[in-house]
Amino acid sequence: METEQYGYSEEKQAYLRRLKRAEGQVRGIARMVEEDKYCIDILTQMAAVNKALHAVSIGLLEDHIAHCVVNAANESQESGNPEIVSDKVAEATAAISRLLRS
Amino acid sequence: METEQYGYSEEKQAYLRRLKRAEGQVRGIARMVEEDKYCIDILTQMAAVNKALHAVSIGLLEDHIAHCVVNAANESQESGNPEIVSDKVAEATAAISRLLRS
Amino acid sequence: METEQYGYSEEKQAYLRRLKRAEGQVRGIARMVEEDKYCIDILTQMAAVNKALHAVSIGLLEDHIAHCVVNAANESQESGNPEIVSDKVAEATAAISRLLRS
Amino acid sequence: METEQYGYSEEKQAYLRRLKRAEGQVRGIARMVEEDKYCIDILTQMAAVNKALHAVSIGLLEDHIAHCVVNAANESQESGNPEIVSDKVAEATAAISRLLRS
Repeated sequence: METEQYGYSEEKQAYLRRLKRAEGQVRGIARMVEEDKYCIDILTQMAAVNKALHAVSIGLLEDHIAHCVVNAANESQESGNPEIVSDKVAEATAAISRLLRS
Repeated sequence: METEQYGYSEEKQAYLRRLKRAEGQVRGIARMVEEDKYCIDILTQMAAVNKALHAVSIGLLEDHIAHCVVNAANESQESGNPEIVSDKVAEATAAISRLLRS
Repeated sequence: METEQYGYSEEKQAYLRRLKRAEGQVRGIARMVEEDKYCIDILTQMAAVNKALHAVSIGLLEDHIAHCVVNAANESQESGNPEIVSDKVAEATAAISRLLRS
Repeated sequence: METEQYGYSEEKQAYLRRLKRAEGQVRGIARMVEEDKYCIDILTQMAAVNKALHAVSIGLLEDHIAHCVVNAANESQESGNPEIVSDKVAEATAAISRLLRS
């Protein structure tokens, strides 16, 4: 079945590796809790996994803008319909805003 | 003197009002410190001014993507030079990353 | 083997459940990437798992202050050595700072 | 009029200087908008003032925990009433949570 290709598709394997690592980090934190490790050491690992996930988000965001938003810009240019790209920009900005508050 | 027009130029007065308000919030926090107000009340105002400034940043970011990045996309399309837009996207993503870590 | 008890120990099972859920969220995001889902939908889930992990961190932080920092305060009070608690407070503040930047 | 002394009172002048500088940064950003500066340069300054304000918040938080929370811990110890400190810890944690989401 032919699936939609997005900006991140080219780097899919790299994203999957990074997500796998983040998943392992969360599992490692659970093990620290299980083994009654010191709170601050656990919190240090929590900050690390948040940072790793934010880095993945930034990558996905860059790919999205470079692919989906840019395609929408060209579509708007060719069709003369500015809403194609303005909707796409609003959608991307809402995603950035959610990340900022997460 | 004709100055460059950017995405935010149309909303300039609105941005100036919001920045003026944020400036006043920071001055208000200083007054709370001056008057030995309770720490938690000061911290509540600190979170509020951070939030207000982040909202301004999100607006500037949306205007930037909708104007500068979209123009670069069209320029790349017309000139056949993909680097015009990819540089612009990388620049925007770096700005988003700085905001996420601020 | 008797292990150290920390503030979070009482809520260990609740923390383990929340971390298990976050681990599942990350795995779910990987599946979305695997199945070429739309970037914005993936980013929405990324913000959700960041939020869930931050909520766990806030819980751990509250338990740490209520247990380890408060114990250190009492120890300082009884021993007359203020450094016991000031070191603990500095350590907790550094952890908060790392979370703010993650 | 004798006002309440808090953890930050000793460093009041330093906090006032830092807040004055942040106020000036916000005014500087407004000037950049006034003078139609490039969006990314404005966003860079926005991230910088957010960071400066967060650093002030971290300082206030450390002083609050080291002074108000520790005093509450000692009061709870002396009075046998654990709620004095647990309320103070919950209040501090809520302030940290607001900062994380700001």
